[in-house]
Amino acid sequence: MAVGEDQLPPLTPVAGLRVAAVAAGIKTPGRKDVVLMELAPGSQCAAVFTRNAFCAAPVTVAREHLQACAGQPHYLLINTGNANAGTGDSGIAAARACVGAVAAATGVAAEAVLPFSTGVIGEPLPVALIEQAVPGAVNGLGADNWAAAAEGILTTDTRPKGVSVHFECAGQEYVVTGIAKGAGMIRPNMATMLAYIATDVAVERGLLQDMLSCVVEGSFNRITIDGDTSTNDACVLVATGAAGNTPLGDSEKPLYTALYRALEEVCATLAQALVRDGEGASKFVTVQVNGGREESECLDVAFTIAHSPLVKTALFASDPNWGRLLAAIGRAGVVDLEVERVAVYLNDVLIAENGARAASYTEEQGAAAMRAEDIVIRVELQRGESTASVWTSDLSYDYVRINAEYRT
Amino acid sequence: MAVGEDQLPPLTPVAGLRVAAVAAGIKTPGRKDVVLMELAPGSQCAAVFTRNAFCAAPVTVAREHLQACAGQPHYLLINTGNANAGTGDSGIAAARACVGAVAAATGVAAEAVLPFSTGVIGEPLPVALIEQAVPGAVNGLGADNWAAAAEGILTTDTRPKGVSVHFECAGQEYVVTGIAKGAGMIRPNMATMLAYIATDVAVERGLLQDMLSCVVEGSFNRITIDGDTSTNDACVLVATGAAGNTPLGDSEKPLYTALYRALEEVCATLAQALVRDGEGASKFVTVQVNGGREESECLDVAFTIAHSPLVKTALFASDPNWGRLLAAIGRAGVVDLEVERVAVYLNDVLIAENGARAASYTEEQGAAAMRAEDIVIRVELQRGESTASVWTSDLSYDYVRINAEYRT
Repeated sequence: MAVGEDQLPPLTPVAGLRVAAVAAGIKTPGRKDVVLMELAPGSQCAAVFTRNAFCAAPVTVAREHLQACAGQPHYLLINTGNANAGTGDSGIAAARACVGAVAAATGVAAEAVLPFSTGVIGEPLPVALIEQAVPGAVNGLGADNWAAAAEGILTTDTRPKGVSVHFECAGQEYVVTGIAKGAGMIRPNMATMLAYIATDVAVERGLLQDMLSCVVEGSFNRITIDGDTSTNDACVLVATGAAGNTPLGDSEKPLYTALYRALEEVCATLAQALVRDGEGASKFVTVQVNGGREESECLDVAFTIAHSPLVKTALFASDPNWGRLLAAIGRAGVVDLEVERVAVYLNDVLIAENGARAASYTEEQGAAAMRAEDIVIRVELQRGESTASVWTSDLSYDYVRINAEYRT
Repeated sequence: MAVGEDQLPPLTPVAGLRVAAVAAGIKTPGRKDVVLMELAPGSQCAAVFTRNAFCAAPVTVAREHLQACAGQPHYLLINTGNANAGTGDSGIAAARACVGAVAAATGVAAEAVLPFSTGVIGEPLPVALIEQAVPGAVNGLGADNWAAAAEGILTTDTRPKGVSVHFECAGQEYVVTGIAKGAGMIRPNMATMLAYIATDVAVERGLLQDMLSCVVEGSFNRITIDGDTSTNDACVLVATGAAGNTPLGDSEKPLYTALYRALEEVCATLAQALVRDGEGASKFVTVQVNGGREESECLDVAFTIAHSPLVKTALFASDPNWGRLLAAIGRAGVVDLEVERVAVYLNDVLIAENGARAASYTEEQGAAAMRAEDIVIRVELQRGESTASVWTSDLSYDYVRINAEYRT
């Protein structure tokens, strides 16, 4: 199951970046499972990785190489079908062998190649298959292969995710294009959210990393399918600089603001697309918490609601069970919460206030709101000016089925 | 579904305490749904209540009365079928009316009666039905009605939970008897874990409260079905003093130690019985984390595993998915976790070490361990001397079914 539109929109090439997707036969014969991205010289690259202490071998190597090449890698190598996670020292060696194959085929230093893997955990990476596929990927590089790459990074996703945002600043056109994959934090034994975003704007390294970290905080870090975080998560932002602007170095310029907004839109779109394709998802739910003293308490309330199995099963059942919402709000750890001030809305329907069901509320109103695929749960704490939103899905039989299936 | 034995063991009366269970017709005609407990004069009573900010009306009134009567209530009045939660000011009035009926029928002050409710959230409490049932409950009070009370406090539990522990100190026999209910933190719209424990040992009020708080921390606070906490949770400990000992006032006496151990056994047994009757439970899982620097980090790891939907669905599938266990450990927030030191066992089978699958491990070993109804997941952090255990169940289709069913 998945919620909403499933058509990949047209993806605009980003000058300075070439892409290829080929079939290496890692898990499914004929399926595109190796993606290569080539960054033109001078491109800057920022990345955020999983915070999971058990990070996969490619995450370790990618972090190390990104530092060694001072944020200017030449290639990103992504494989699906095998996460190279939980593989210990031999996993590190396997990741190094794969980036070595790219270095050998292109003549760059191994440190200029960042590896990414997604797929089965705990199985040895089939290095030879990837090595054999690399020359074909190098030969296949082209500016217009983003849609193939969006397909090539998928594992058990039901559809590709990608978006391009165009914007203008001082008469010049710029673009941000991004693709992402992931459908739960860890599929039965599939690891990972991966996202690759590129712009032709020139941005200095430090600022680029700051922008990515901030934008991820408000997008990919605001979604949850099941509260689990994978061993392989990574989000990469490339600024090729092909637009020829003076590289952005601070947040004073109008171009910075325009780029930031475009990045926000791309990341929010991709993050929401991940939730819409969430495991067993039949609802797309925005949990919006307003009126907190601090953003952190709004987030605590929003994530407590979004993670509550009781709220999620009620969403699956289209049951406007306001008691479960109150109970989740009440246990979110908000200091000195005055429950009499809290109001809860389903879309625009007031369902609870003053610690009880709203006098105006009828079950028919709630049932009507719940019938939609897209639902907004809005909580008004009425104790401050802060606000926060997260996006989540429901908890369905399909979620249990997908995650309880034996590994094959 | 439920895991393990379903026979209620014989429950030993506690001198100084009389019990009655009657049918008031609150939700299901003929079903025992009102329980009254009478404490002999001189009994001391301690209690812990839900920390949920949206606590139910009876919790508010019970807290207030326990303070007003200086820890010496005469009656505990429990109803099922209606939680009197999310009912605002009229819920408070309803709770007061019910305790008023007990006061009128027995001649005690209203403050000497503590109310407890469990059942549907957000519906008005049918006060008249409870008032009508009170005289019959008063007339039915008897020392030997614990089994009827264990049945009378149930809502959607599939079986009653109770246990008696006898112990001897300096040649004298003592007893602790307890009953509990609850099968998820909040059923579709049913609230609550409730537990009532009594002993004939004389204990001073302050010490009694300390003992209860400590024992609850290691028992009821170590279980989780779905991470949700209800609006009505309460655990009450009564010391009637009928044994005639000099009231315990500190922890120096051998009798204190003996009583504490008996309380631990009663509370652990009841807490585990709640998990075994957990919503849709097909496995009873002990998550034991050893070798932490502090107990708190052991608990963080244990609860992260126990709350992970991915781990819980793997347990349902009897799938020894060690990758999900490593991922849960890795995101538990342990500072400076050295993943190379972590070892994970299923029962006595070493499944993962050095950040990867154990070399000695075979899928057959894991599958054999997973086939049992009772499973121990043991994590060795190998960085300190602290330890902690929690108990949980799996996440099954039945959990989703039970919680997704429309309220009726």
